[in-house]
Amino acid sequence: MKGTMSTDVKTIIQEGAELTDRALETLIPSVDTVPASIHGAMRHSTFAGGKRLRPVLAMQAAVTIAGVIPSGIEHLGAALEMLHTYSLIHDDLPALDNDDLRRGKPTCHKAFGEAIAILAGDALQTRAFEVLASLNAPSAAVVQIIGLIANAVGTVEGMIGGQVLDIESEHRKPTPELVDAIHRAKTGALIRVSVVTGGIFSGATHDDVARLDTFGRKAGLAFQIADDVLDMTQDSSHLGKTAGKDLATEKVTWPAVFGIEQSRRDAAALIEEAFAALAPYGSRADGLKSVARYLVERRN
Amino acid sequence: MKGTMSTDVKTIIQEGAELTDRALETLIPSVDTVPASIHGAMRHSTFAGGKRLRPVLAMQAAVTIAGVIPSGIEHLGAALEMLHTYSLIHDDLPALDNDDLRRGKPTCHKAFGEAIAILAGDALQTRAFEVLASLNAPSAAVVQIIGLIANAVGTVEGMIGGQVLDIESEHRKPTPELVDAIHRAKTGALIRVSVVTGGIFSGATHDDVARLDTFGRKAGLAFQIADDVLDMTQDSSHLGKTAGKDLATEKVTWPAVFGIEQSRRDAAALIEEAFAALAPYGSRADGLKSVARYLVERRN
Repeated sequence: MKGTMSTDVKTIIQEGAELTDRALETLIPSVDTVPASIHGAMRHSTFAGGKRLRPVLAMQAAVTIAGVIPSGIEHLGAALEMLHTYSLIHDDLPALDNDDLRRGKPTCHKAFGEAIAILAGDALQTRAFEVLASLNAPSAAVVQIIGLIANAVGTVEGMIGGQVLDIESEHRKPTPELVDAIHRAKTGALIRVSVVTGGIFSGATHDDVARLDTFGRKAGLAFQIADDVLDMTQDSSHLGKTAGKDLATEKVTWPAVFGIEQSRRDAAALIEEAFAALAPYGSRADGLKSVARYLVERRN
Repeated sequence: MKGTMSTDVKTIIQEGAELTDRALETLIPSVDTVPASIHGAMRHSTFAGGKRLRPVLAMQAAVTIAGVIPSGIEHLGAALEMLHTYSLIHDDLPALDNDDLRRGKPTCHKAFGEAIAILAGDALQTRAFEVLASLNAPSAAVVQIIGLIANAVGTVEGMIGGQVLDIESEHRKPTPELVDAIHRAKTGALIRVSVVTGGIFSGATHDDVARLDTFGRKAGLAFQIADDVLDMTQDSSHLGKTAGKDLATEKVTWPAVFGIEQSRRDAAALIEEAFAALAPYGSRADGLKSVARYLVERRN
């Protein structure tokens, strides 16, 4: 399969990541801007080696709709990445997961103290919405994008809701329903909305949005399952974080409920279902599909 | 003066607060909505006896521009109140001010634990932007309102920036420049943007926005000075929080730098300057002016 792709998936990801990084560099105040400590903390976590997968998915969804990566979409990508980074900073805090390392580097509160880490997470969320409000798109599309993204990081089937379910379900027996609900909310919703808003930025119709939503929902779940499998099968040096931590803290994960082999089959089947939703776009969807396949296979 | 007001200021405030409370009641998910704990925590702090001053200021700014309280502005007011509440929840956390009581009730982390309090603050910020994205106003106005509010709660001259300056300046010698910068950012920016966005919601022109901005900036600083004076002159039972706490923790305040008498004169002078900006609106600004005067005099 990989030999037939028109553009190398690693090039797609790398170029999308570079576009996003340049936008983040201009959109987050420099450490020379008062008050310096908060901007240092925001930058510490934002530039800690993230792969910019959400921005890349938004860009390739745009290509699926419009055939090109539209000018200015890197600001949407930067906002999505700020929201992802804010969630990681708060998730790592002592009161939550209490992690000292993230991608092999000190977590925000380890480097800057707890007060500044809390405020840096807060500020990344705020700045994300400020950047979205200045997107170079028609006002009606901007309002729609902001509403959808806020919903995806909120409490009802969104990212914060997933974090709360995750906290509440530790040390409880995992059920298929619970693990599905946590995955859909905690990481799935932001992946899904990245794909959908990338399309809306490029002028997606109502039908386009429905197809991208189906793709984003199924692919997002596949990524999370692949991540959970990776956590159980790789060692810490490959992960850049403590391996087996999910198991040690009795986190509810897909392989904990369904086993590793079934999880791998589920992830592969979900990706095929996700691809089916993109059939009307023919080869314009190749970039989006290749990125999704790479994310699942790399992790398996 | 008070006898000549067309509408009693306490009625204005009470009616605005009730309108806001009803909106908040519908806009924050109920405790029956999964996950329950986060919605309980969001409600605990949102319905803890706040006076809804920011929504009331937004509504009276709207009256100043349009002559009436426009339908749907209570959703703008609710969003402003969610942002204010989120900042209080995070400010009270052990890593920040470490307060057990707020308005005589347990703070969010005391009632729900630190993890849920952090996430409840996060979620109130998110929900505020989601509510703003569904405001009943033209898309261009909604985008402008979201951009201005995000800026006012951000790190550069906004609310979070003020909190960081405040943390960094504890136990340092206060200077007039520092106390002015903290006040403008920490509490002033959200007051100011409440007035401005209330006007924009009602169709304010560019000139209207400039006048409301001047009013909001000067009145907001006057409120904060009056608050600081109150902290130094009242006892704890009147305040509903620990009196003299600013002094005990060596917080940088206006009376600490300028003395109580000078602070009272400064607050009164700022209110007169704020009123001057509203001269073109004649009696339509009476409600906004009476609320502002009430807030400063009540506290002095």
